Amino acid sequence: MSYFKAINLVKRPSGGPITNDLFEVVSKEIPKLSQGEFLVKQNHLSLDPAMFGWMSPDTNSYIPPVALGDVMRSSGIGEVVESKHPDFKVGDRVTGLMGWQEYYLTDGQGMNKVEAPLPDEAILSIFALPGITATQGLFNIGKPKAGETIIITGAAGSVGSLVGQLAKADGLTVIGVVGTDEKADWIVNELGFDAAINYKSDNLAAQLEEIAPQGFDLYFENTGGPIQNLIIDRMNAHGRVIVCGMIADYSKAEPSPGPNWINVVKRRLTIQGFTMPDHFAEVPALLAKLTPYVTSGKIKYRAHVLEGLESSIDGLNLFFTGENKGKLIVKL
Amino acid sequence: MSYFKAINLVKRPSGGPITNDLFEVVSKEIPKLSQGEFLVKQNHLSLDPAMFGWMSPDTNSYIPPVALGDVMRSSGIGEVVESKHPDFKVGDRVTGLMGWQEYYLTDGQGMNKVEAPLPDEAILSIFALPGITATQGLFNIGKPKAGETIIITGAAGSVGSLVGQLAKADGLTVIGVVGTDEKADWIVNELGFDAAINYKSDNLAAQLEEIAPQGFDLYFENTGGPIQNLIIDRMNAHGRVIVCGMIADYSKAEPSPGPNWINVVKRRLTIQGFTMPDHFAEVPALLAKLTPYVTSGKIKYRAHVLEGLESSIDGLNLFFTGENKGKLIVKL
Repeated sequence: MSYFKAINLVKRPSGGPITNDLFEVVSKEIPKLSQGEFLVKQNHLSLDPAMFGWMSPDTNSYIPPVALGDVMRSSGIGEVVESKHPDFKVGDRVTGLMGWQEYYLTDGQGMNKVEAPLPDEAILSIFALPGITATQGLFNIGKPKAGETIIITGAAGSVGSLVGQLAKADGLTVIGVVGTDEKADWIVNELGFDAAINYKSDNLAAQLEEIAPQGFDLYFENTGGPIQNLIIDRMNAHGRVIVCGMIADYSKAEPSPGPNWINVVKRRLTIQGFTMPDHFAEVPALLAKLTPYVTSGKIKYRAHVLEGLESSIDGLNLFFTGENKGKLIVKL
Repeated sequence: MSYFKAINLVKRPSGGPITNDLFEVVSKEIPKLSQGEFLVKQNHLSLDPAMFGWMSPDTNSYIPPVALGDVMRSSGIGEVVESKHPDFKVGDRVTGLMGWQEYYLTDGQGMNKVEAPLPDEAILSIFALPGITATQGLFNIGKPKAGETIIITGAAGSVGSLVGQLAKADGLTVIGVVGTDEKADWIVNELGFDAAINYKSDNLAAQLEEIAPQGFDLYFENTGGPIQNLIIDRMNAHGRVIVCGMIADYSKAEPSPGPNWINVVKRRLTIQGFTMPDHFAEVPALLAKLTPYVTSGKIKYRAHVLEGLESSIDGLNLFFTGENKGKLIVKL
């Protein structure tokens, strides 16, 4: 009889950093398969800002919270190691919401086969949640037009870095907001953004004026934080704000205030939030839209790989500190 | 040679109440008509919250500000008293942006004939800016469905009172936010709203919970103010927020903060601002949509009529104090 490691959520975060006491590391028995099931050995799992929502108790949220005592939810990639399922055979590479555990037993529900000959890191960085999120938010909500200017917060993050490259490929002027000079350098010199702003630097209003005197037509929001007000002040008429995440506020007990809506009226802005579970049925179409940008070499990524299942816990705090460099992935 | 009175804007407001020194009352000569022109004697003019935008210097706004030294912009209704225009004859009733003056010379641009046998007050209260604004905002932006719940701020105001009655006629549950108990009584007992809340009363969160435990699917925003946060906290998934006005903030030098966007993501809300000049081409369609509600007797209004052109100036302050009872109209 063999055992594997899993991590369960046992307590909900109440603001502040993610700590070990929210979780318990357990040892589970590798299960016996029934007909129609298969077993996946997970090789890499993905850490995403969406996980803060999944840990929260808000039942009005877009997806049920992880129940206390259940394995923590996450997406990952792995290999089928045993199968009694007609469509999945041993050796197949698969992705899905396998959670914080080394093995995953499934009847195939929500699992997708990976055909592309790309490393795990590339799959999780582009063709998983980040890529479909960037594609849905930028194209289907933002409706960008060549010649427009977009500003993206969390621009070196897994979603923001893709949004910027997709927008650039479509002829927009692309400005990124980041939290370190190293990230500013990366998005401009490696990814081809037109300009970057470090939100921890001084004179943000003057920097925005200098970098984009033409104002912003689109604003892809991943972070929240004080720069939000300055950006809203510089939105052009009929501007569109795509609200994908508010990472600056997930770790706060009391969220900080947002911008006044006077400019929402004056400039006739639309501020629209979205989350991917509403759009899972559209994933094939989203991947079809995204793929040509990748195959034509327009999309770069970098992965920040942590080692070992337990590194997931403290790894989540990198979203708050901004110390991650690239897509956060845990190697199991 | 005859003269008439007009009021010019000579200084822009900078927060705080509207004062006489922002304007000058002048005497103008009744002009001679050229071919293709006609002269209107204005009988009633309309005071609208949109006028605060027109006085502001923000060139990024939806309509050019009134130039300093020009007659203050306003819509009104009057009678053609002299005409060299083929389509407008003496005795015709007309509406248009005639401004703060007793007479208006025009080539017909932007002027509309009034055929409906209704008093001036009814035309300005329903078929002018308030009616087309309510119709555009509720139906074309809010996309209400029978059975949904809508909350409306400024619910006893010219736009809010129409929005509530239209929504009620279409089978929604309608909650109004007002600033006096008299207005609360009026919207519930006269207009048929399901419930009202006085935003100056205590325990607003508890009142909202009691009145609408089901939460809100639509939020028609005319005012801003602290209740905004409480409403956003109670929006249901896929809720739509129609931002029509922010009267609580027009008179402030420093606008108050708005709600954090965390719920915009979690509940996938859309917050959309609009102003009517973007939709003037759609006015015939909007009036066609609105008219059956009026002719079937579903729409009530009340007008708050001030006497004399000069009463316009201090009349604007009634929007801030909320002391107006019904649509603000100035009788010339």
